Formats: sequence, structure tokens, C-alpha cells
Amino acid sequence: SHIIAPAVATGNTVVAKPSEMTSVTAWMMCKLLEEAGFPPGVVNMVFGTGPRAGDALVGHPDVPLVSFTGSTATAQRITERSAPFCKKLSLELGGKNPAIVFSDADLDQAVTTTVRSSFSNQGEICLCTSRIYVERSIYPEFLKKFVAATREWKTGSPSDPDNNNGALVSREHLEKVRSFVTLARSEGATVLCGEGEDPLVLPERNTSGYFMRPTVITGVAESSRVMQDEIFGPVVCVNPFDGEDEAVAKGNGVRYGLAATVWTRDVGRVHRVARRLEAGLVWTNCWLVRDLNLPFGGMKNSGVGREGGRDSYHFFTEVKTITVKH
Amino acid sequence: SHIIAPAVATGNTVVAKPSEMTSVTAWMMCKLLEEAGFPPGVVNMVFGTGPRAGDALVGHPDVPLVSFTGSTATAQRITERSAPFCKKLSLELGGKNPAIVFSDADLDQAVTTTVRSSFSNQGEICLCTSRIYVERSIYPEFLKKFVAATREWKTGSPSDPDNNNGALVSREHLEKVRSFVTLARSEGATVLCGEGEDPLVLPERNTSGYFMRPTVITGVAESSRVMQDEIFGPVVCVNPFDGEDEAVAKGNGVRYGLAATVWTRDVGRVHRVARRLEAGLVWTNCWLVRDLNLPFGGMKNSGVGREGGRDSYHFFTEVKTITVKH
Amino acid sequence: SHIIAPAVATGNTVVAKPSEMTSVTAWMMCKLLEEAGFPPGVVNMVFGTGPRAGDALVGHPDVPLVSFTGSTATAQRITERSAPFCKKLSLELGGKNPAIVFSDADLDQAVTTTVRSSFSNQGEICLCTSRIYVERSIYPEFLKKFVAATREWKTGSPSDPDNNNGALVSREHLEKVRSFVTLARSEGATVLCGEGEDPLVLPERNTSGYFMRPTVITGVAESSRVMQDEIFGPVVCVNPFDGEDEAVAKGNGVRYGLAATVWTRDVGRVHRVARRLEAGLVWTNCWLVRDLNLPFGGMKNSGVGREGGRDSYHFFTEVKTITVKH
Amino acid sequence: SHIIAPAVATGNTVVAKPSEMTSVTAWMMCKLLEEAGFPPGVVNMVFGTGPRAGDALVGHPDVPLVSFTGSTATAQRITERSAPFCKKLSLELGGKNPAIVFSDADLDQAVTTTVRSSFSNQGEICLCTSRIYVERSIYPEFLKKFVAATREWKTGSPSDPDNNNGALVSREHLEKVRSFVTLARSEGATVLCGEGEDPLVLPERNTSGYFMRPTVITGVAESSRVMQDEIFGPVVCVNPFDGEDEAVAKGNGVRYGLAATVWTRDVGRVHRVARRLEAGLVWTNCWLVRDLNLPFGGMKNSGVGREGGRDSYHFFTEVKTITVKH
Repeated sequence: SHIIAPAVATGNTVVAKPSEMTSVTAWMMCKLLEEAGFPPGVVNMVFGTGPRAGDALVGHPDVPLVSFTGSTATAQRITERSAPFCKKLSLELGGKNPAIVFSDADLDQAVTTTVRSSFSNQGEICLCTSRIYVERSIYPEFLKKFVAATREWKTGSPSDPDNNNGALVSREHLEKVRSFVTLARSEGATVLCGEGEDPLVLPERNTSGYFMRPTVITGVAESSRVMQDEIFGPVVCVNPFDGEDEAVAKGNGVRYGLAATVWTRDVGRVHRVARRLEAGLVWTNCWLVRDLNLPFGGMKNSGVGREGGRDSYHFFTEVKTITVKH
Repeated sequence: SHIIAPAVATGNTVVAKPSEMTSVTAWMMCKLLEEAGFPPGVVNMVFGTGPRAGDALVGHPDVPLVSFTGSTATAQRITERSAPFCKKLSLELGGKNPAIVFSDADLDQAVTTTVRSSFSNQGEICLCTSRIYVERSIYPEFLKKFVAATREWKTGSPSDPDNNNGALVSREHLEKVRSFVTLARSEGATVLCGEGEDPLVLPERNTSGYFMRPTVITGVAESSRVMQDEIFGPVVCVNPFDGEDEAVAKGNGVRYGLAATVWTRDVGRVHRVARRLEAGLVWTNCWLVRDLNLPFGGMKNSGVGREGGRDSYHFFTEVKTITVKH
Repeated sequence: SHIIAPAVATGNTVVAKPSEMTSVTAWMMCKLLEEAGFPPGVVNMVFGTGPRAGDALVGHPDVPLVSFTGSTATAQRITERSAPFCKKLSLELGGKNPAIVFSDADLDQAVTTTVRSSFSNQGEICLCTSRIYVERSIYPEFLKKFVAATREWKTGSPSDPDNNNGALVSREHLEKVRSFVTLARSEGATVLCGEGEDPLVLPERNTSGYFMRPTVITGVAESSRVMQDEIFGPVVCVNPFDGEDEAVAKGNGVRYGLAATVWTRDVGRVHRVARRLEAGLVWTNCWLVRDLNLPFGGMKNSGVGREGGRDSYHFFTEVKTITVKH
Repeated sequence: SHIIAPAVATGNTVVAKPSEMTSVTAWMMCKLLEEAGFPPGVVNMVFGTGPRAGDALVGHPDVPLVSFTGSTATAQRITERSAPFCKKLSLELGGKNPAIVFSDADLDQAVTTTVRSSFSNQGEICLCTSRIYVERSIYPEFLKKFVAATREWKTGSPSDPDNNNGALVSREHLEKVRSFVTLARSEGATVLCGEGEDPLVLPERNTSGYFMRPTVITGVAESSRVMQDEIFGPVVCVNPFDGEDEAVAKGNGVRYGLAATVWTRDVGRVHRVARRLEAGLVWTNCWLVRDLNLPFGGMKNSGVGREGGRDSYHFFTEVKTITVKH
């Protein structure tokens, strides 16, 4: 007879490559790891652009797996480039996250939290809300309150603690975000506030920054690129819906599946809708509440795999099954 | 505060596509599933070639994951083709599996089992041994016994229960396997038995089959394609080694990492060598003993992921984390 | 260095001892196991009383663990008797399960299901409701509807498919159940329906059975034995409450902690109250919905351990950690 | 339909009661926890004897579980005393741990490590070896080497770093340990070294300590109390065996099942014997190598449950299964 047991190889070293737009914070992280006493060589960081530093890592035969957080386009390139090496991939990609607000929701809380979920960090969080669906009976009231609350969300110098938003990451990105507003207008949509209003009044040292007002758009067709593509900026679209089925269908009507929020007091509806939404993360009556032990990641084009707790342990382990005759 | 819990969607339906060379056994499997009472639509089977049937599945947006068993080349194509859809992939690919025989092994058992591990099913099992490394002090004795035992391994009509091997799967494949023997000869290797000897005497109804004698080659350079590429036929190469380190280095000296076998009576050596070998499956003093609950799969170019028990459950589950405010 | 791995011994045989009051159904189970092809000796059944058959098993040195379902009193005896042998124990014991009905509940569904949860199988299920707490604003309406629905719950010959309840298991048990009603009356409680009404009209062949009408009592003090002890018969007590805190305090105010049900439409309240209730099983807006893969068992005096899925696997496994020097 | 999910209550506070013989080290542990920043009230320590402090904890209704490390006799009392409260118990108890030395073992290493496993901390570790079984062909040689190595194991002032052993924990315990040697002699056994030799020469400040020489006994009957009871002192018995079956039978011939060690170079024998030994922990060709993530605990009278990693997490968690109708 035989004993068969899986053996696990533990303790991996890491080579991390941060975005070339955020090198300084990554470098500060290195400093903290050093201060925390990590042995040299355990966590290594290389800086550079994707085509230079990223490609070199992904295409290197000694790198057996890649955990990537970024855009779906880059993920596709990583997948293709690593294909000849059969690398394990964990991909945390973009989203086009819906918020669904039912008529029985706590409206004030739904408005306050959805402004925050739409515009936090200038909308440059993969988990930000970019599509809001409101049950028709409360649609006018929601819109009114939502636009009012958006106007209270202050954009300006990030060193002023009274401000909610600072500048976007780069000129190219600001232009890309603005182009979606232009596209929406050209398709007949209504911009209720934000982009197009008077320029922001900024301190002199911030005048060359890439600032943009939080922008609320309504009347965009579900099929529009504005409703289908990730904008990753302070832009949110609002549309009405009738009934649970339509809410779920619209929520699921994109190729992404990262996060979704649901607003309703009804316990049956909470669980019914959460179950039907195609999203790796569903928040009900809240947003961005996380427990790092629980699985994190997206469905569909929002990624492959989950991070956190056991899932990370599983991903970073290469299992070996050893059989011993006895 | 909040309750956060992962919810799992269970119960998937399956579309299976067998190799176009093995359609009949797959169709018989369908019959058995039907007989076992599987509801219609749960397990579905489509027949066809990779470019027609396989590509259609891999490139279909409604197929969220692909579990593939086959060649590394096809796996690469699947990976690239599914990249735009961010599909989960489980890949069980080829091998170039070493057997390492130390001088303290039970030689008779090592010879008998290694003949079986090299030639079973004409070597057309991904787990078959294709490289044998023998400690130098017993190398001549091993070779002598191994060739003698190989000559006892009978090839002929598969309907004759006295035969061990039947024909290879196709004329193309037979020619490919033979070409490796030709290549070995051209590189100066010695063919100790098998290919090149008198033609097999076969019953009349089998004379058009793709039969080939089990073939033992020695003196092939480690860097030769004969030692590096998967042959998937009744061909095995034997080389000597000196010491544990060289055995492990040679065993790991290919881009594959599916299976390995180790022959030694020494308990310390068994576990030391098993731990150092880059293979998802290590058999010590035995071969092909399996427990379906334990992880099955390869490292390096032999695949991504593991099948069996919890690993399969993990792979086929799309986890959703739902947070409820309370 | 060393390899350390847990090894598990799997595949246990079982000696089962059913209650001496239910020997025939257990014997029928044996027949089914035989028919299903279980090898002889794998599942064994012994019949007899606790003091004779049960004690012999519990006190036998070759029985390494005991999984017991029954009363807390017997569990205590098993625990003491097995103490010298350090046996693993899994104990599924009694309950005094509360149902908590908030004013925003679907009242008709709460009434219908709570009648069923109180009286199913004559209340002789450990999971039956025996205490109902109703929010004061709907208390009169609930009581009225609940008594009316209880009167529709028919007791009589179990072979008549129109009947909901049959007879209790024994004369002794019937007398014990009735004594709780007597005690309630003597303490000043009100019996709204059931015990004390006109005798049931029964078919002649059932006249010697141990039948009892479903009985609803109100006005019992929380500290009364009627509210604290498991009755295990068709008797339920109803009391009002004010606010979530009082509901939870009353629900938790017994030494048992098996099951609880909560009735409310409010999603926050469902999860808040479920979290605070000391019960291994909490059903919200439903009762007795089970998934055999999920943990089953009670807190406090309702038991030790959980059954089902991984918990059973864990309980029935004796883990061995083997370290091999290499 | 319904969602059913287990919810776990995490984050327990602890009341620890150390042995009254080791209060100072426990108190020092408290100081370290304080220094490490544990919030007040999370880990609490009470000092006192079992009948006073221990009983009060075990019999307190607000203590839902007890994790105990100590003697089997005390565990029995804890089990009985906690029975009315249905408490979860994790019991790490005594041992009578065998070492099995086969003729193909590395004899020098087996001797050196077995002296250490027999006498470390004066034999006052539950994992110490107390029975040594030696294959008959090497029995005389083993005995000679073992006694010689034992004589090198120095007993004396624990503050002298040259000494291996210090004093036993108390006068009562020293007398109990010595009584086993007396019993062995009275039953006709041979004391090869240790107890009975010239008194130890000790520094003046240690002369009132409870010192005892490491003692090796041979010729004790397997059924003797000397071979069956836990001595928990620097006393080890050595006996010969013939063949694997006898080795396993003798190793398993006690009511304890905590730890065992196996000495052989043969890989088949290592796993065969490890599998057959009734012990929660089996060390092969080593002793006391631990990984805190792996299960730790004993079979039979050596305990209930396992500590470490997932097992501890499982034990200290009270699982609740919540079902939500949707």
C-alpha cells in the first residue's frame, strides 16, 4: 500500500513593479518594509514602464506566477505574453460598477454614500460606482438630492483637509475622462453638474494640476461607450429602472463584474438581488467595507481569481503530491 | 457594523470536447452518463477538431472557464484566445518525466515498474517515464536487466490479452515518434532495442496498424531535443548520474514538470529528493498510484492549477463576497 | 531538515444504537443499508435501552468516540461515563427554541410557519418552536390569528393524510407533557386552546393512542419551568416584547441554544438579531430549511460540536502528525 | 429559496490558570503580554490550586469551553465537572511514549537523540520517551552505548550551563518517581544506571533540591505499572523486540497514545510503522521537531482534540448557521 500526501513549498520571494505613475509611494513602501526588518531580497521592487519593466518580468522564465492589478487591456497582454510559460495568473482589473437604489431605501444614506462611492479619490478607484440605477418612483427626488450632494463634494488642493478630491493622475488621463463627457453630450445626454461649469478656483500652486469637477450625467443609452467602458474618473451616469428584473439586467449589462451596491431595506430583496448580480463584490446599504480575510476579486472581464485569506494562500502555493510506497 | 460573507454559486453545466482522435470513447461516456440518470443539458458533448469545435468554445463569451488536458502548444493557443475574456484556465499538459534510480534501490522492482511506466499504453500517457537516470555504480546492471525486460513487453493486437501494447493513435503520430529515434541515431546515440529491429509479426487484420516496438536509447545528450521534447510514444532514454545533486539537476533539466519517480530504500533520500524535484507528482518506489482526492497537475510547462478534491471545487467555483449592513 | 505532515486515518465502522422507542424505523434503515450494498460489519446496529445497550457502548474501551442525539440529561451521563476513556463526543441535545416576531413581519406567513414549527410531529422535534415572542403592537392580532390557525392543525389517526399530528411516543411522555400544562395553569397562565378542551374524536383503532391537542399558553413567567425546560410536545407559550434588546434577552434567557427563528422584513434587523441570538441555527422568515453540507448543532446546553460537511469529517477523523527526517 | 451561511463569532477573551507549581513563569508571561500591548481583559490569569481555582473555572456557567494540559486524572475530573454545562473540551494529557529502534538505524544518532528524548527537563515533558524497544540483534550494543551516553547526561545546578538536568518539581513528585524504580527492582528488573548510585555531588545552595540521576531499567514486564503508567521523571525502560509486528504491538500496548519515535533507515518501514502506531505524533529518526501550524495532540488516554493551526481555530470558534429567506 501507499501513503499519498500533498507537500507544499512555502515562502516565496517577490518582485514588485508599481505603476510608473505611482513610483514614489511604492518606494516609500519599500522603506517601510526595510524598517520593519524584512530580510534583503524577500520583497524586491523594480521601477519602470510596462513595455520595459513589466514585459521583462512577465516574459522571464524564472517568474512562475504573476499577480496583476490594473487595466483589462494590460491583463490581456500579460496573459498572451506569459502563455508560452504556462504562468499562474491572478488578475484584478477594471469595473463599471452599478449602484441599484430601490424605492424603499434609506434615501439620505443612499445619496450620501453613493456620492462618496462615485467620486472618492476622483473616481480613480476600481471599486468606484459609475452607473446608478434608481427605481422610477423615486428617480426625480433621488436626482435632485444627488446633484445637490455632489455640489457639496469639494475639489481643490489635496493639502487642504476641507477638500474631498484633488487632481487626476495625469494630463492624458484627464483628457480621456473629459472625452467621455463630450461623447455623452454628443449622444444627447444631459450633464446635470460638474464638467462644463465655471473653472475651479484654485490656489496658485495648484493651477497647473489636472482638476475636474464631479460630474453627473443622465439620459445615456445603456449601449453607449459612456455606460460600457471604464472611465476611472469623477463621472457617474444615472438612469431609472422599473422592477427588480430590470435592475438586475441593467446592472449586469456590461462586460465587467467587479463590484455592485444595492440599496433597499427589504431583507428578501437584498439577498435575491445580491445573488443575481454578476459581481465578485456586492455591498448592500454600504460601500467599501472590507475584511481582508475574505475573497476579493472580479467576475467576467474584471479579473481572474480572488485575493485575500485562503485564496491568496492557494494562489501563491505550488502543490506537490508525493506518494511513498510502504 | 457589517456582516461580510462569501457566497458560492454551485452547480455548473459542462460542455466537453474530446480529442477528435478519441470521439468514440467519449461518446460511450455520454451513453453512460445518460444511463446513470444525468438530467439532459448538464453534461454536453461536442465533437470536432480544435480549430473548429475547440476554438468556438474557447472564444465564446458565455464560457467563463476552460479546463484543458492536452499539449502545451494547444494550451498556449487557448490561453491567448481566451485572454480577451479573462477566462479561468486549468491546464493539464505534457511531461518529460524522469525516473531516478539510486544504487540502493530494489533493482528488480525498479526495472519491472520502470518498463511499465515507460511503455504502458505505448507511452501515450502524459505520466509515462521518458528519461531514466541511473546511479553510475549500477548503471551497467540496470541497463542489462532493463533491456531484457523491455524485450518481454509484448506489442501486438490489442485484442490479444497477452500483449502489453497495441498500435499508436495515428500514422502522423507514429512518424513523429520514429523521427525522434532517427534524430537520436543521427546525434550518435545508441538504440539498445526496439525501433529498427525486425518488423513485428502481426495478425493479418492488424498489419495496417501503427505499431512500434518499445525502444530503449542511451547516450543522448541532455540538451538534445530527444531529451527535452515530449515524444509521447514507446521510447525511453537512459543515462547515468553521480550523486544526489546531479540526479536532481538532470531530473529538473527540462521545461516540463509533471511527474517524477524516485527509486531508493533510504528514507532521508526519498524525502530529500522528492522535495527538490520540480514536478507536481512524485512517486517513490512505485508509479501511477493515485488518490482522486489529492491534487493532480504539473509545474512549469506541464500546466497551471491542480485537479482533484478541493482544488477542483475551488476552480469550478466563482466566489462572491456579499456585505450586509446591519 | 524535516518534513512534517498530518496523516489521516479514514474509513470508520459504526455501531449505532437507536432509541428503544424507535427500534423498528432503525431496523428498516438497516434493511436499506443492506439493500444499498454496504459491506457487512461497516454499519452495525444494537437494540436496547440506554442503561443496558447504551452504557455498554459508551463504557467500552474500543469505542473511541460517541456521537449522541438525545436529551441533555443522557448526554451528561454519557460524558461522565466516557470520561475515563477520554472519548471524543459530539452531542446534539435538546432545545427551548424561540420564535421572535417583529411588527413589520409578514404576519400571515409568520403565523402559518410558526404553527408548523410549534406543532410538527406533535412538537417532538428538537428544532420545534416552544417560545413565541411577539412585538407588543401586533401581539393581540398575532395571538388571535395564531390560535385560529392552531385550531386548524388537525390531530388524529396518522394514517389519515388530512391529519397534521398523530399520537405522542408513549404514555409516560404524554403525561409529562400534560403536566407542564397543569403547572402553567397552577401558576396563573392562560391556556388559549388545546389541552383541556373536549376529548378528540378518534377512530376506534386509535382510541388507546397517546393523543393530545396542540396547546397555546400565554402569560407564563419567563422564569417558570414551563418556559425554561424542554417539553418536547405540542405545547407553545406566547409572550409580548418591546424592542430588539428585550426580544434578544428573552430569546437568550434559557440554558439551551439550539435553534431560533426571526420574523421581520428589515434586512438590518435580520442580521443584527441573528448575530445576537445564542443559537447554533437561526432561521429568518422561514423554518427548518436545511443544507446538509452546513454546520448543524447547538450552543450552551443544546450540545457540543457540529454535524454536517466538514465538521463531521473533522469529528470522525483521528489526525496523526508524522515527522520524517531527511 | 434561501441562502444558508455559517457565521462565526471570533475574538475570545481567555482566563488562564497555570499549575500552582509554575506560577512564577506564568506571571512572567503575563508581564510579556502586557509589554506586547495586549488590551487589559483579553488574557486574564488566575493563580491557585485545581480544587480552588480550577474547579471554579470549570464549573462556571459563563465559561463555554476548557482547554486543559495536564494529567489524565485531572482531565477526568474536568470532564465530569463540566458535563452539566456541555462544555467543549480540548485535553492534552499524559503519555507513555515508545521509541522503536530497528537494527538498520543510525545507531549513534538513535542513542544520542533517545538519551535526550528520555531525560530532557528531567523527563518532565509529556513528549519524553519512557519505553525503548530495540530490535534483538542490536539490543546488547544499543544498551551498552545507551547506558554510556546516559552517564554523560549531567544532573546538577540548573544555573551551570554544563548541566543537562536540574531538580524535579517537588519533593512529592521526586518520591513518586523513585517509587517506580523501587517497584521495578521489587519485580526483578535490573537498574543499569542512575537511581541507587552514589549521591550526586551538588553545590551547597542546591543540596536541598529534588535531584535524581537519569535512570535506565531493563527487564520490566510489559504489564508492570512501571511500563504502563506515566512516570514523568528521568526514568526509561529498555526491552528487546523481534520484528515489526511485535514492535508495533509493544509500542501500542499501553492506554496512552501521545507520541512515538521510530528509528530505521528503511523508507517503507518508516511509513508502515508510523501508520500503525497509535500516537497523535510520530517522529522518525528525530524527536521534538515541531511546526506550530500542524496538529498537536494525543490519541486514546492522551487526550481529546488537536491544537495548532486550523484545529485551534476550529476549537475556539462557535459556529452559527443563519438561513435567510429571499
